[in-house]
Amino acid sequence: MPVWDDVITERDKLVYNAAGFGQKRIGFGQKPALIIIDVTYAFVGDKPEPIMESIKRFPNSCGEEGWAAVRQIASLLPVVREKNIPVIYTASDTVQKPSAWTSWKSSRMKEENRVATNQIVREISPSANDILVYKSRASIFYGTPLLSILISLRADTLLVCGCTTSGCVRASAIDAWSSNFKVAVIEECVFDRAQTSHKINLFDMNAKYADVVSVSDIKEYIAKL
Amino acid sequence: MPVWDDVITERDKLVYNAAGFGQKRIGFGQKPALIIIDVTYAFVGDKPEPIMESIKRFPNSCGEEGWAAVRQIASLLPVVREKNIPVIYTASDTVQKPSAWTSWKSSRMKEENRVATNQIVREISPSANDILVYKSRASIFYGTPLLSILISLRADTLLVCGCTTSGCVRASAIDAWSSNFKVAVIEECVFDRAQTSHKINLFDMNAKYADVVSVSDIKEYIAKL
Amino acid sequence: MPVWDDVITERDKLVYNAAGFGQKRIGFGQKPALIIIDVTYAFVGDKPEPIMESIKRFPNSCGEEGWAAVRQIASLLPVVREKNIPVIYTASDTVQKPSAWTSWKSSRMKEENRVATNQIVREISPSANDILVYKSRASIFYGTPLLSILISLRADTLLVCGCTTSGCVRASAIDAWSSNFKVAVIEECVFDRAQTSHKINLFDMNAKYADVVSVSDIKEYIAKL
Amino acid sequence: MPVWDDVITERDKLVYNAAGFGQKRIGFGQKPALIIIDVTYAFVGDKPEPIMESIKRFPNSCGEEGWAAVRQIASLLPVVREKNIPVIYTASDTVQKPSAWTSWKSSRMKEENRVATNQIVREISPSANDILVYKSRASIFYGTPLLSILISLRADTLLVCGCTTSGCVRASAIDAWSSNFKVAVIEECVFDRAQTSHKINLFDMNAKYADVVSVSDIKEYIAKL
Repeated sequence: MPVWDDVITERDKLVYNAAGFGQKRIGFGQKPALIIIDVTYAFVGDKPEPIMESIKRFPNSCGEEGWAAVRQIASLLPVVREKNIPVIYTASDTVQKPSAWTSWKSSRMKEENRVATNQIVREISPSANDILVYKSRASIFYGTPLLSILISLRADTLLVCGCTTSGCVRASAIDAWSSNFKVAVIEECVFDRAQTSHKINLFDMNAKYADVVSVSDIKEYIAKL
Repeated sequence: MPVWDDVITERDKLVYNAAGFGQKRIGFGQKPALIIIDVTYAFVGDKPEPIMESIKRFPNSCGEEGWAAVRQIASLLPVVREKNIPVIYTASDTVQKPSAWTSWKSSRMKEENRVATNQIVREISPSANDILVYKSRASIFYGTPLLSILISLRADTLLVCGCTTSGCVRASAIDAWSSNFKVAVIEECVFDRAQTSHKINLFDMNAKYADVVSVSDIKEYIAKL
Repeated sequence: MPVWDDVITERDKLVYNAAGFGQKRIGFGQKPALIIIDVTYAFVGDKPEPIMESIKRFPNSCGEEGWAAVRQIASLLPVVREKNIPVIYTASDTVQKPSAWTSWKSSRMKEENRVATNQIVREISPSANDILVYKSRASIFYGTPLLSILISLRADTLLVCGCTTSGCVRASAIDAWSSNFKVAVIEECVFDRAQTSHKINLFDMNAKYADVVSVSDIKEYIAKL
Repeated sequence: MPVWDDVITERDKLVYNAAGFGQKRIGFGQKPALIIIDVTYAFVGDKPEPIMESIKRFPNSCGEEGWAAVRQIASLLPVVREKNIPVIYTASDTVQKPSAWTSWKSSRMKEENRVATNQIVREISPSANDILVYKSRASIFYGTPLLSILISLRADTLLVCGCTTSGCVRASAIDAWSSNFKVAVIEECVFDRAQTSHKINLFDMNAKYADVVSVSDIKEYIAKL
């Protein structure tokens, strides 16, 4: 039973089955890259604690669900690195002009000390050969040279981890699909601060832009490369 | 009560209130453009009928909800045109290479006669001065010259209609926000084939990228220009 | 002796040698695509004649030099097609909003009947499997889905023909290099309406973004694939 | 007599006059931004000296011509700042993955200590309100959020300074024109390491994408704002 099953109406299930959406798997290509989106202290807090506690000090925090994903990503990293699959991290650009969003939709964004909280969490910290891309918008592609990096790597498949499911993950999955990459969103490795948004964004991505897969699917795929 | 109220958990409401998401309005700028995304026969069918009936012949159809939105858009168009606000329609590009999506995620996409169903519905058909942009991906910006058109129009605000809420509308709203346009999604004028996706995508956009507003809000804003 | 030798100053030659520009070859990759930019009647006229004659009726025409390139491209096409190398043509978009350039820098642009002259010349007309991309700016990438097409083709090398050397070819070579494609500009297959611009743009591209190569270099490369 | 007059053939002059290229001025808009491209020690060296001397230590240096432009930009800055016209500087991104160019076309690129030489020269150093955009390719737009910054500033006109005329200035002018900004390249404020490339790139930009203007033209325009 997919994670979104309890929030999709019966009518919606009938419609998608009849219309054909999400009825096929994209599948994996030959040259994957692992993408870890914004897994910084800003988005999980400095320790696992309930989200309502965590957001007192970290307004963007996703709380414990974030740390659960960190552990899954940590288990995946050695498998990925052993096969020399490129690992690409993203984090907020704290140098360039602040994004519009800062002032437009959130009432608490300005509190945050973005420089201090913009570090990738230590449990999954980048290695010397990994690539770090700074971004200022939701999509990992917007205003970044990522597309040129993926082309030079000859990547055809993006294995997506990180946060938030309804924010940067969703925006990046759309752009990746638009650029004809095969996109796999790893369910246990993505997280969000909202429960329903998490489920529905997985549903939407799986219907249109990506395969939502498990960590064990990914490990099996990588083992065969 | 917002349309998404019944699908958002109580925890999510507490989190968003505490975290500050969606707690501010972007507001309107001085130079709006009306954007009508993909309101073609492919997405509403050739007549108002229940979606399960409509998708038998039009796999992408959103059925009656689509036609309800068409009527709302039709009521808005004369108001917009009277103030010489630019109107930009989008439709699928049927000339260039088919999108990856055709073959990747949907089991019925190839049935469709895209050329025949790719006309803007007659009730809201473009006038001679309107702009028509053909696109091959979800976002109205991907692979199109739309950004250059908006810059030449000096537009600062996008009033968004069309479909689907969870597809091209969502993808386009993210990109428009990323490019620093003020985005207003007109609730009665957007539609989707899935009920929960419609609600949650409005919720997500309102929390992060756009103001979800009513047709009457828009008419009031335009009256003052 | 490169074609630009007579227009580069001695000082410039010393500087580029000492600074290292253009001192290395990019070389070819494993997956080339042939790109034929804007070889339509608008840019060569309807028959080979001296440029001053040709531009009376075709303001954008490059005259006889264009037709010389057409013959070279025609000789290359069967070689390319035999190896199933993708062939991508571009032409002006005559549907979408006219480009700014129309009215900004040229005093004769509006004379032209763009629809009538926007056909690829018959001597090198596209086959059923070729890809045709319509564009509205100089670069073949600006406002087009070309990048997504190249990614889906897994192309790593662009073999560039067409016109004009100082216009769309130069703009496209910069963008292709920026996106990390290996770029080879085929000297006999590109052309321009200005003699010095043709030479210097080849010099500039060869120094920074591309290898300027001969048709025979390309045939030799393709033979080995 | 334009600076390119001595390198353009008589035939070319006849052709451009007859064809209409460069025969019109774009003119200035209402909301300019000053763009200063890559005026760092890497591109002018640490003091004014002949280029052949300067490139011994700074392989990218343009030598004395660069410093002459620095003085002109320095004279322009107070005029621009007095009117609160936005000033946007660019410099190389030294954090993200090195560009392909590093290894592809230049034989000396790896010598350079990019971090040490990537400072804007002191004579025109940024003020607190200025914007600094880091880029990894030739165009100031490629892989950067600059377009979103210009849209949020409501800019319609780019006044372009910096280097090199045949490199980042040319690439950026094409992209700016493609996005429908009015582009003015300030002749005394741009510079290149090659004499003929400098002239021909000014000629090409003036023919197709930009007005090549003098510092005094710009001061006159700004005085009237």
